[in-house]
Parts: sequence; C-alpha cells; structure tokens
Amino acid sequence: MTLTPLSIAQEVGAERLVGDSTRLITGFASLTEAGETDLTFFSDGRYEAYLYATKAAAVLLSPDFQPKKPLPSHTTWIYVRRPEHAFYSLISKYRVPPLPQWGREPYSVIHPTAEVPEATYIGAFSYIGERVRLSDNVWIFPFVYIGAEVEIGEGTLVYPHAVIMPGTKIGRGCIIHPGAVIGADGFGFYKGEQRLYERIPQIGHVVLEDEVEVGANTCIDRATLGQTHVGYGVKLDNLIQVGHNVKIGAHTAIAAQTGIAGSSVVGAYCRIGGQVGIADHLRVADHSSIAAQSGVSRSITTPGKSWRGSPAQEVRQQLLIEALTRRLPEIYPKLRELEKILSQP
Amino acid sequence: MTLTPLSIAQEVGAERLVGDSTRLITGFASLTEAGETDLTFFSDGRYEAYLYATKAAAVLLSPDFQPKKPLPSHTTWIYVRRPEHAFYSLISKYRVPPLPQWGREPYSVIHPTAEVPEATYIGAFSYIGERVRLSDNVWIFPFVYIGAEVEIGEGTLVYPHAVIMPGTKIGRGCIIHPGAVIGADGFGFYKGEQRLYERIPQIGHVVLEDEVEVGANTCIDRATLGQTHVGYGVKLDNLIQVGHNVKIGAHTAIAAQTGIAGSSVVGAYCRIGGQVGIADHLRVADHSSIAAQSGVSRSITTPGKSWRGSPAQEVRQQLLIEALTRRLPEIYPKLRELEKILSQP
Amino acid sequence: MTLTPLSIAQEVGAERLVGDSTRLITGFASLTEAGETDLTFFSDGRYEAYLYATKAAAVLLSPDFQPKKPLPSHTTWIYVRRPEHAFYSLISKYRVPPLPQWGREPYSVIHPTAEVPEATYIGAFSYIGERVRLSDNVWIFPFVYIGAEVEIGEGTLVYPHAVIMPGTKIGRGCIIHPGAVIGADGFGFYKGEQRLYERIPQIGHVVLEDEVEVGANTCIDRATLGQTHVGYGVKLDNLIQVGHNVKIGAHTAIAAQTGIAGSSVVGAYCRIGGQVGIADHLRVADHSSIAAQSGVSRSITTPGKSWRGSPAQEVRQQLLIEALTRRLPEIYPKLRELEKILSQP
Repeated sequence: MTLTPLSIAQEVGAERLVGDSTRLITGFASLTEAGETDLTFFSDGRYEAYLYATKAAAVLLSPDFQPKKPLPSHTTWIYVRRPEHAFYSLISKYRVPPLPQWGREPYSVIHPTAEVPEATYIGAFSYIGERVRLSDNVWIFPFVYIGAEVEIGEGTLVYPHAVIMPGTKIGRGCIIHPGAVIGADGFGFYKGEQRLYERIPQIGHVVLEDEVEVGANTCIDRATLGQTHVGYGVKLDNLIQVGHNVKIGAHTAIAAQTGIAGSSVVGAYCRIGGQVGIADHLRVADHSSIAAQSGVSRSITTPGKSWRGSPAQEVRQQLLIEALTRRLPEIYPKLRELEKILSQP
Repeated sequence: MTLTPLSIAQEVGAERLVGDSTRLITGFASLTEAGETDLTFFSDGRYEAYLYATKAAAVLLSPDFQPKKPLPSHTTWIYVRRPEHAFYSLISKYRVPPLPQWGREPYSVIHPTAEVPEATYIGAFSYIGERVRLSDNVWIFPFVYIGAEVEIGEGTLVYPHAVIMPGTKIGRGCIIHPGAVIGADGFGFYKGEQRLYERIPQIGHVVLEDEVEVGANTCIDRATLGQTHVGYGVKLDNLIQVGHNVKIGAHTAIAAQTGIAGSSVVGAYCRIGGQVGIADHLRVADHSSIAAQSGVSRSITTPGKSWRGSPAQEVRQQLLIEALTRRLPEIYPKLRELEKILSQP
Repeated sequence: MTLTPLSIAQEVGAERLVGDSTRLITGFASLTEAGETDLTFFSDGRYEAYLYATKAAAVLLSPDFQPKKPLPSHTTWIYVRRPEHAFYSLISKYRVPPLPQWGREPYSVIHPTAEVPEATYIGAFSYIGERVRLSDNVWIFPFVYIGAEVEIGEGTLVYPHAVIMPGTKIGRGCIIHPGAVIGADGFGFYKGEQRLYERIPQIGHVVLEDEVEVGANTCIDRATLGQTHVGYGVKLDNLIQVGHNVKIGAHTAIAAQTGIAGSSVVGAYCRIGGQVGIADHLRVADHSSIAAQSGVSRSITTPGKSWRGSPAQEVRQQLLIEALTRRLPEIYPKLRELEKILSQP
C-alpha cells in the first residue's frame, strides 16, 4: 500500500492540498521528528514555530489555521478538519499491528463450564475458570488468569499476565494492560481477640463499565461487601492503587502511581495527576482537577475546581503559599530588623 | 441453607433477640447499604445515626450499646458480644467461596527434588523448583513461580502470578496476593573500575514469619547478605517496596505504595499510611504511627508517637506548621505594614 | 572448596596478611554481622568504630588504611587494593548460585519464525513470539512473555513473569527483574467527537541499551511515535514508571517508585531517589541529583546540581526553607508582639 499526499487527502476527506501531491509517504512522526518521507500533523498553536522548520513530507492541519508566516513550499500541506484525528486514524489503519486472529493457542486451560465463543482469541498459557463468560471479540493474551464467574464484554483486550480475580465484571471495549491485578482482596482487618489484625472477609467484587482502560501493574481491589466500581470511559495509567469499595465516576482519567484508599468516591470527569494520594472514605466532586503528588485528605465538595499540594488546597491558594514559602528567607531578617528598631530606646 | 435471625442468634451465641425471629436473611451488607433481607452489624458509635435509618432485616449489635433513641421495630435486633466478629464469621462461613481442593491441575512443572505433600493445591502452570519444601495445606495458584529451596509453611496461600525467588522462607498462614515479587535482587551497586555501577551480588534471602500478608504487586527484595525479615502478623498492602535487608517488626501494618529503602528497621506494632517513604539505614521505633505521604528521613527513636509530613515531624508540630503555612498570605501584608509604620518619620 | 585467609589473599592478590592465615572461612557477612568463621570487608571510613569490635575471622581492607587504634589480633587482616571489589568477587565466585544451563524446559511456546540460539535457557511456560531474535547466552526464565519482533542481546537475563511487549529492543548484559512490563502502550488520548478520551495509537517502541537493569514490577511504556530510550548502564529499581517517549541518559540510577511522565528527557549520570515525580515534557540536565519524594515540575537546565522538595528547588535553598518552615511557630508570636508595641500610643 503506497501512501501519497493525494491518497491521504482523499482518505481523510481533506478540504484542500497545497504542494506536491504525489511524493511518497512512508512513515508517521511528530512535527519535530518527521523526516522527508514522513507525514505529521499540526493542531496545537503552541508549536507553531516548529511548523516553519519541519522537514516533513506532508503536514495535516486545520483549514482554519492562519499562519503568521508563509508556510515552506518543500512540504505538502493537507487541510482537513480535526487533523489530529485524521493523523491517528491513518496510523491505526496502516501502522498498528493487527491483533491476533480468533483461535486457541496451545496449553490453555478452559474450565468446561466457561462460555468461550468461537470469535475470541485465547492465548497460550491462559487460564479460564469456572462459569466464566466471555463475549464475542474478546482477546485473552498469554498468561492471563481469569477466575471463576468473571464476565468480559465484547471487544475487550486482556494483555499478558493480567490477573482477573473471581467475580469481576468487565464491560465492552475495555483494555487491561499487562500485569494489572483486578479483584484481589481489599486491605481490611478488625481487632481480633487473639490477633491484632483479623482479616475481614472480602466478598464484594470489581465492576468495570465499558471502555475502561487499566494500566500495567495497576491494582483494583475487590469490595469488602458490594462493589468497587469504575465508571464508563475511565482511564487508569500504570501502577495505580484503587482500594476496596472505591467508586470512580465516568470519564475520569488518572495518571500513574496514584492511590485511592478504601471507600472513597471520585466523581466523573476528574483529571488526577500522577502520585496523588486520596485518603479513605472521602468524596471528590465531579470535574475536579488534582495536580501530581497532591494529597487529598478531606472531601472535595465543590465541583470543577483545581487542587494541589499535600494536604491539597485550591490551586491558586496553594501556588500563593508555595511562592510565599519560597520567600521565607526574606522574612526572618525583616523580623529581626523590625525587632532591632523597636528595641532601640 | 436458610438463615433467619433465630438461626443466626443461635449460631453466634447471641444474648438476646428483639423483633421478628423467623424472617428470611439472604445477604450481608453494610449498615447503610443493607436491604430488607440483609444482615448487617453496628459496632462503631460514629455511625449511630445510620442505625435509626437502616432498612436491614437484622442488625448484630453489642448488648452494652445504649441507643439514644428507640430502635426501629421493622428490624430485628440481635445482641451479641463482638458483633463485628460475629458478622464476619458468618460471612466467612456462608459467603466466602471455598478454596480449591487438594490436587494438581494440568501443566504444572514440579522438580523431582521438591517436597510437595498430597494435601496441597497445585494450580495449572505453576513452577516449583529444586529442593522446594511445601507443607500440608498450601495453595499454589496458577502461574506461581517458586524458585529453588523455597520453603512455605502450613496453610499459606500463594495467589496467581506471585513470584517467590530462590531461598525465600514463608511461614504458616501467610497470604501472598497476585503479582507480588518476593526475593528479587536488591538494588545495590558499587563503583567499579570500568563501570560506574558494578552489581553487588545479592546472596541473602527473604524470610516471612507466620501470618504475614503481602499485597498485590508488592515487592520485597532479598538481602545482600543475611535476611530481609518480615515479622509475625505483618500486613502489607499493594504496590509496596521493601528494600534489601529491611526488617519489619511483628504486627506492623503498611498501606499501599509505601516504600522502605535498604537496611532500614521498622519496629513492631507500627501503623504506616500509604505512599510513605522511609529512607535507607534508619530505625523506626515500635508503635510508631506514620501518616500517608510522609517522608521519614531520620530515625524515629521514641516509640509510640505519631508522625506526619515530608520530612516527617511529630504530628502535632507538623499540623501546627501546616496551619501556619496556610496563613503565610497574612504575614507578608503585616510585615509590610509594620515596615511602613516604622519608616515613617 | 575450603577457604582460608591465605587462599583468599592469594586469590584476590593481597599485598599482605596479618594474623592466622590458615583458619577456616565458611561465610561472607557485613562488618557488624560477621561471625567467627566469616569473611568481611572494610572500605567506608564512617564505620571504623565497628572494625575494632568485629568478630569476623578475616577482614579485607585497603593497604592505605591508617587505623586510629591497634587492630584486634583475633582477626586476620588481609590488605588488598579495592577490598569491596575483592569481597564481592569472592561472593560471586563462591556463593552466587549458578544460572540455569542452556536448554529448553517443557511447555515453552516458540514461534517458528523466532531465532533462538542453542546457547540459551528457555524456561518452562515461556512464550516467544513471531520474528523474535535472541542472541547467545540469553536466559529467559519461566512465565516470560516476549512479543513479536523483540530483540535481546547477548548475556541478558529476563527473570520470571517479565512482559516484553512487541518491538522492544534490549541490549547486551541487561537484567530484567520479575514482573517488569516493558513496552505496554503509553497513556495518551485526544479529545474525540464522541468520546472525551480517544486513544492515540502507540506505535513507537522501547529501546534499552546495554547493561540496563529494570527492577521488579517496573513499567516502561512504548513511545507513541519513535522511541522510549533507556541509555547504557541505567539502573532502575522496583515499581518505577517510565512514560512514553521518555529518554534516560547513560549511567543514571533511579530508586524505587519514582515516576517519569511522558516525553521527559533525563540526562546522563543522574542519581534520582525513590518516589520522585518528574512531570511531562521536561529536561533534567546531566549529573543532576534529586532527593527522594521530590517533585520536578520545571526543567533542570544546569547540570551537576542537587534538588529537593516538591516543587523541587536546589537542595541548599530547599533545606533552608524547610528549616524556616519549621520555625514558623516563632514568627506569629513575634509579629503579634511587634504589632502590639506599635499599636501602643
């Protein structure tokens, strides 16, 4: 399959094309890294300076873009609505390796009571337990453990070495990355008569709604009772900890190494940075934005605000305090000076 | 098996029962979530308000409890010592799925020199190396790797995808959650002549005493020389890092994503929050309590105190400082005002 | 093989030996833990006090060392250049268990197009995908997943349960610890028309240069386009997150639980503590030293400096600010006092 600016323009429904329409396009790259046979795109105005210096063969850009300078003529300019989308769609079509075909690789262990449709990929060394129900178009990669009574919806991918513990329900179009552990026991104990920490039995389970993504080595614990619930379209990065009975609202995205302690409820449309800690039994309102490394130790009740710091405060207040903290070295000499003046007779 | 308030009262040895003793109990739920056929319990006075609003069929509660208002009559009240314990015992008996039966699933690889008693469960795709010694009543779930000369005590569970590296000793009644890595090499280097980082050979090992719990994807590194040692009844949550040669005293509990650097010694009966960092070669005294996200950069020598912040200080001092830090925006205007007054002729 | 001070002195090329040269050496231990038949070493002047109290059978130490007190005569003193190196070399020779021999254990799945030389160890339950190329002297432990078109250089070890996703290139002499995930998709989304988070296809890959070490359960994401690149001799501890398109310069060492967000570039010869966060699209200059739990939110452009705090500042400035912050409780009373004086008529 040969790509040219013309074939690309036709495929993405471009509005117009300026420059050589027949040159060969062999690769896809970012604006700064694209070479003489690469396609790239431009959609973020902050990078306009790079546009004039690009070596790319062709650039996808919006017909609404008003360049500040003439665009170089050695590059072909393809004007299309949503250039970012056009670019990624071409990559998905021409560069993303195809997923494995339906079928079973050797050495899989499938319990006779499990429902495994024909139209699924079951990788080598996969383990599918009692009464598991897989839908059509599910990919189970090698070394995946699927415990009893797990259900997995259509179009979901479970990458190698993921562990799906018994009773977990996974929706449609989800992606479970390698090494993720979903449904391990929550961390719950009560004071026993003989033991300081007597285990609380963990009989709840984990529910992931449709289009949830769970990052590599991320852990989502089962509920003590009831559900740990991850809403529609939630995106979890790698090495995240989601405690027992946590609820995460739809369309919330969380960066790597963040931890949410037991029973906390995170709203919808939140954006949470990396290495954030959210203490247990809290609520975080919808549309909250929480900066990396913040520590949320009280509930956030007003939606739509930005938070930062540990303990977290509203971002403006916290930035002010950080700035003033950095100025502490000025304060002490001033205080001393004032004291000196006042102590003078 | 049909449960009623009466059957439950008999089973847990209740002192008395008030209300309908024959209604059907079909589930177990928390005080706030319990529905009309659920059993729940009440033991924490802070939630007393929920007691009067519960829809539960029956509530386990202490005979010593003095309600502030009359208890609703649509619920059956079962008075029993240690209601929390009674509730969890019933769940363990009636709701926790049974563990797999003794036996070997297909495709396990067991070295001929390994001691694997009959009364063990060896899941599919498990790997048991040379001279491993398993006790009776051990569960090895699928995809578990057990390296050479590992010993595992009676009643221990090793969940799927756990990695137990050579030489590790695990006591009785331990639980190793999915994806945990016990006994990987410590992170130790010395300056070489040709390489900046020459590896220090890691020939020590990891010892877990009885009743230790290791969370999902938690890592406990082997010692350089000697032992990394985790004491009796220690509970480790998910995604924790325990460095080489660390010692953790008995009955200490540590929440998710905390890291303890090499050679530090954490005392007994400590409670450590999530995302805490403890630097290397430190000591943390017994009965210390360390708040989430704290950074311990000096040894804690006095036992029984609470710590917070990074670097960690005693909790009262740290809370005072946090409060004063939040008031910094008041200080600067005051200083300016004082300066202004004093600069007036 | 019997070891004595004499045999050891000969083997390591010692300059001289003082004391009993024929006693039996049966173990290796640290200066404080060594018993009457153990060898130990002394190279760090801070521990000189322990030297006079050691119970070791023999101590390796530098001929340049000038003791402050007479060395005890019950111990044999072996004077050798680079005593640390001599000690670890002896351990490597006499105590490190040998690696598995070349060969294939049962139940491995090797794609017919994969190049797997004779001189490799392929553990049980390992999965080697299409067009994979292994070099000689590679160890693939049980439960390792190696995706399509991965290349692994000579002398590299891949420990149990590591996941090497398609297209990853691993150099010579690398060590991949258990549960590490290399080459999972980066965390990248763009605003779609129907979905808030539309996946950006991740078609780049991960390149590890020679002698890289990747800790247990550490995650290194593939690049969106191009490469995530880890330089020569980089050492990564456990549970680290390396985002898509990150570059890490040669000879940089990073402690556990640190996270580097997408597209950031960390220089060579950096030393980064545990639980550090580095935000996305930043640069960290060569030879930077970053203290544990720091948060790097702006690029570090001057090489060779030390950083600390969140947000990170130069270490002296940050230590000053931390000290002054701890003195905040003094400031408020002083301010009040000054105000009082000034408000007096």
